[in-house]
Amino acid sequence: MDTTSRIERSLGQALSLAAGAEGPPKLQAAMRYAVFPGGARIRPRLCLAVARACGEDQPALTDAAAAAIELLHCASLVHDDLPCFDDAATRRGRAAVHKAFGEPVAVLAGDALIVLAFQSLAVAAGGTPMRLAPLLNTVARAAGAPHGISAGQAWESEAVIALEHYQRAKTGALFAAATAAGAGAAGALDAGWHRLGERIGEAYQIADDIRDVVSSEAEIGKPVGQDRHLARPNAVGALGLRGAIGRLERLVNEAVEDLPRCPGADALRKHIRSEANRLLPRRLARPAA
Amino acid sequence: MDTTSRIERSLGQALSLAAGAEGPPKLQAAMRYAVFPGGARIRPRLCLAVARACGEDQPALTDAAAAAIELLHCASLVHDDLPCFDDAATRRGRAAVHKAFGEPVAVLAGDALIVLAFQSLAVAAGGTPMRLAPLLNTVARAAGAPHGISAGQAWESEAVIALEHYQRAKTGALFAAATAAGAGAAGALDAGWHRLGERIGEAYQIADDIRDVVSSEAEIGKPVGQDRHLARPNAVGALGLRGAIGRLERLVNEAVEDLPRCPGADALRKHIRSEANRLLPRRLARPAA
Repeated sequence: MDTTSRIERSLGQALSLAAGAEGPPKLQAAMRYAVFPGGARIRPRLCLAVARACGEDQPALTDAAAAAIELLHCASLVHDDLPCFDDAATRRGRAAVHKAFGEPVAVLAGDALIVLAFQSLAVAAGGTPMRLAPLLNTVARAAGAPHGISAGQAWESEAVIALEHYQRAKTGALFAAATAAGAGAAGALDAGWHRLGERIGEAYQIADDIRDVVSSEAEIGKPVGQDRHLARPNAVGALGLRGAIGRLERLVNEAVEDLPRCPGADALRKHIRSEANRLLPRRLARPAA
Repeated sequence: MDTTSRIERSLGQALSLAAGAEGPPKLQAAMRYAVFPGGARIRPRLCLAVARACGEDQPALTDAAAAAIELLHCASLVHDDLPCFDDAATRRGRAAVHKAFGEPVAVLAGDALIVLAFQSLAVAAGGTPMRLAPLLNTVARAAGAPHGISAGQAWESEAVIALEHYQRAKTGALFAAATAAGAGAAGALDAGWHRLGERIGEAYQIADDIRDVVSSEAEIGKPVGQDRHLARPNAVGALGLRGAIGRLERLVNEAVEDLPRCPGADALRKHIRSEANRLLPRRLARPAA
């Protein structure tokens, strides 16, 4: 089964845990709408790539880890789009969840997706109970406070933003969890897996900043120029376009060169380079070597 | 250590996992504000009482289970008070979280408290990894969809409310998780523990409905008459005051008579009766036997 099908299937399996005739139909529909169709699924792809590189031996647990990471990502998008945050009308080229289902259901869909992320880990860990606590911890730290995506978003409510903590929490945390959880699902606990994800997360944040400046709404499926509009920090603003692209390339090189020892390192390096190329708007991407 | 101190300590320990100098100060303050000072802590008290009745052998895990239940309860209150739901200005006699910290921080504090509930279970399960997955499942089912508190709240966004599912999810689920998790933390998995919590949860819902009709805001620390105001179902409206009290008493009797077999059944029965008496406004409560 190819990676994309595998990710969609594991997300579908997770969502089926939250479905049932006795549940409120709108909430269930909103949860599904928030997850399908997805974006690039870059975090679960990374999670699976790391698990494979580590000699994956518990595919169901890897699937659940990848799904958990993506569910948390989707939950954060649903909440970030709410009127009290970005007040975004569209996401992935169609109405944001709060526009399609109303604000109350959007809040609750985010909540229930967070819960579902942890539940799907618990359900998949039956055969390897010793791996559950560390995996769950990895995922929880990336989602909550003080270092997870909730904390990252909350920095925007502070009068003074600690920029490094803000970006590491808002974007880096979930990438670091994707790599650490992929390794953890395969029984590998080297701290280097976390660092790898942090670097990729920072690269991703820079690519996102670049897209916010140079892309069109049609190209990326959401409004552009939001960072300037909302006075948010942006790497292009800080480093210039060339500077930002250079920093992104350096981060990818460091990530690839500093990989923890694992049986499938070569394939993982290839995966990281190819995903990095997908991040940039086409006219800026370097042709694959 | 008495029960109250034990619960406050375990909540404090959980919150310390979410605290750190690198995190955004307002979010951390809002999470603490949402949890301390608490209400009656009726769910974690019930959780501890059941664990003790089951011959509690892993106190740290029981503590984490009780804290997880209460954190999820607090998270749901923070989100329920938001403008798009009840738009409540006060809670427990002071400003609601969204009034004290702003709406964005309130949304994120709820999110991070949900994450923290699961994280604290994972941290406490180090010594008994086999108990983590079932415990986590119990707690997650009570929080998410289709049967948990998110689902319960989401019924209010449906044109037609399935009353039984609504009440069971909105109130019953977390009580059922309190009893099942208390038993699960002590290694007991009898399905009767879940049923016990459902009955107590239904009794609690009826008591809450009664208080909403006959109490004053000063007495219960939140606005009264909300059910009529928001056109929500209310047991007093459906059964009359006497009918509602009678139903509550029947539920408590059934709960006490149908207890799963356990070493500490007598003390647990006493706990349930005494807590039930605390639920009603003083002038309606039956003098303790």
